[in-house]
Amino acid sequence: MSIAYLGPPGSFTQAALSGLGVPPDQAVPYPTVRQALDAVRAGDASAAVVPWENSVEGSVTESVDALTSGRDLRIVGETLLRVQFALGIPTGTPDTPGSTPDGAPDGAPAWLGSVRQVLTHPIAHAQCRTWLGANLPRADVVTTASTAQAAKEVGTAATPGAAAIASPNTLRRYGLRIVADDIGDRHDAVTRFVKVTRPAAATDAPPTGVDRTSLVVPLADKMQHLHTVLQEFARSQVPLTAVLSRPGGCGLGTYSFLLECEGHIDDPGVGVVVASLTRHHSAYLLGSYPRADLGRLALSR
Amino acid sequence: MSIAYLGPPGSFTQAALSGLGVPPDQAVPYPTVRQALDAVRAGDASAAVVPWENSVEGSVTESVDALTSGRDLRIVGETLLRVQFALGIPTGTPDTPGSTPDGAPDGAPAWLGSVRQVLTHPIAHAQCRTWLGANLPRADVVTTASTAQAAKEVGTAATPGAAAIASPNTLRRYGLRIVADDIGDRHDAVTRFVKVTRPAAATDAPPTGVDRTSLVVPLADKMQHLHTVLQEFARSQVPLTAVLSRPGGCGLGTYSFLLECEGHIDDPGVGVVVASLTRHHSAYLLGSYPRADLGRLALSR
Repeated sequence: MSIAYLGPPGSFTQAALSGLGVPPDQAVPYPTVRQALDAVRAGDASAAVVPWENSVEGSVTESVDALTSGRDLRIVGETLLRVQFALGIPTGTPDTPGSTPDGAPDGAPAWLGSVRQVLTHPIAHAQCRTWLGANLPRADVVTTASTAQAAKEVGTAATPGAAAIASPNTLRRYGLRIVADDIGDRHDAVTRFVKVTRPAAATDAPPTGVDRTSLVVPLADKMQHLHTVLQEFARSQVPLTAVLSRPGGCGLGTYSFLLECEGHIDDPGVGVVVASLTRHHSAYLLGSYPRADLGRLALSR
Repeated sequence: MSIAYLGPPGSFTQAALSGLGVPPDQAVPYPTVRQALDAVRAGDASAAVVPWENSVEGSVTESVDALTSGRDLRIVGETLLRVQFALGIPTGTPDTPGSTPDGAPDGAPAWLGSVRQVLTHPIAHAQCRTWLGANLPRADVVTTASTAQAAKEVGTAATPGAAAIASPNTLRRYGLRIVADDIGDRHDAVTRFVKVTRPAAATDAPPTGVDRTSLVVPLADKMQHLHTVLQEFARSQVPLTAVLSRPGGCGLGTYSFLLECEGHIDDPGVGVVVASLTRHHSAYLLGSYPRADLGRLALSR
C-alpha cells in the first residue's frame, strides 16, 4: 500500500523519506499533515511521514495536534534532516546586470524591489525572520502548507512580485531562480520527521538499545500533577528528551503534555513509567521506535 | 510617556488596553510585538501591551520569545479578552440579492466564490481552520502581524478577491463588509494580554491576594532538572498555572521553560520557590502582578 507524506513532491518531508526506508515509488504526496494522517486512519495509506519537531522553532504543533486528536495512530520511526532555506523568484524577473543577490540591503539588486509577496511555511517564515526583516520588510508573507507548496505555486503561477522560501533543490525543481541562499537565522537547523501507522500495523519493534518513546498525558487543569508525572521518570532514571505543553482546549490553564524519553517500552524502566502514567493519569502511548542518530544527518539542498 | 501596543488601531490588543488602565490618548500602535517591546527597551515608551496566551492556540510564542530574549523587561499586569472572529470583504464586492452569508457551502453566496486570499494573524487563522476548510478551502492565507493589520490592508487596498479575518468591530472600522460572523472553532476563546515595563519602572506592586508570578527557567539540555524545578512548587504548595516549553536554540532537545504560578513573589511560598530556582537553575523573574478575573471578561466585538 502507499505511504502518505506532506507534499507536494520536493518537500522537506519527501527528502526525509529515504531516512525512514520508504521506497520512492510507494510515496504519495498529501497537501496537509492532517490529510496525510487521515489517509492512514481511513486505510488509504499504510503509513504517513510528517514533520514533528524543529530545532529552532520547536514542535510542529500542527502535526502534534493532528496526531494526538485521536488515539488511533502510532509512531514507528523517526529521522533527522538538516534544513536550509533560500529565496526563489520566477525566471524572467527583470534583473540588473552584474547585481549580486547577496542579501545586502545596501546596493540591493533589482529583484529585491520587485518582491511584494513571499510564500512559505510558517516554520520556515519564523526561521527566516531576520533576513526578511532586513531585506524585504514590506513584503506580505503568504502561508502555505509546506515550503514545496510555496515553490510550486510561485513556479506555476509566475505571479509578478511573488517569491518562495524553500530548499534550493525544491526551488530549482519548480523552475525558480535562487536569488538569496542560506537565509535562515541559524545554519544548523534540524527537523525531525516521524513515520506513523495504525496500531494494528505497528509490529512492535523490539528494543534496539537506542530507542525513543513518545506519550501524551492529558492533565487538563491538574497542572500540579505534572510534578508527579515527571517524578516517575526521575525515579526510574528514564531521561526525558522533550516536554511540550499544548492547550487542553477548555480555557486558559488547561493542558495536555507530549512527553518523549529515551528507551523502549519493553525496557524495564520505561515500561514501569508508562504503565504507571497510563493507570494514574490516563496517559496514552504514541510509540516506541529506534532513535535517529544526529551523526548521520542528511542535508536537504 | 506613551504606551506601546500591538496595532494598528482596532487591534484586539487595543481593545485590551482599558482592562489594563491605559488611557486611550497615551496609547501608540506598533506594527509588531517585537517593535512594541523594543520601544520600551529603547525608552521610547514607558510600557507595552502585547498578547500573551490564547485559550485555544496556547501561548503567543512570538511574544514569549521577544520578551524572554532579554532579561530587561518586567510584566506588571494582565487582562483577559474574549475574542471573536468574522470575515470581512471590501464593500462593492458583487453579491447575489438575497444570498445569506451563513457560511454554508451548499447554496454558497456569490461573495464566497470571489474570495481568493484571506489576510489574518496566524493565531486567528489556526482558530478559524474548520470554517476556512469548509468554506474557502482553496483561498491563500496571508499572514499579517495582527488581525487589525489584515483588516486595514484589505480595507485600504480593496484588492478584488481579498478578505480579512478580525473582530467585527475592527472590520467595520476599516470599512469592510462582514459576510460571515462567529467563524472561530470555539466560541469561548479568550486571550490574555500583559503589560510590560522596564524593571526600574516596575514599582513592585504589593501582593493583592490574587496575583500571578511568571518566570523563565533556562534548562538547556538538562531536561531531567525539570522534575526538580516542579518539585519546588509542589513542596511549597504553589499552584502552577502555565508550563510552556520553548526550544533553547541549541539543537533538538534543549529547552527553556516559561512557568507561571499563583501568588506573589512577596508571598512566603512563591518567594522561596523563586529564590531557590534563581540560585540553582539560573531562573529569572518576569514579574509578579495582579491576576485577571475570568468573571470580568471584556468581549471584543
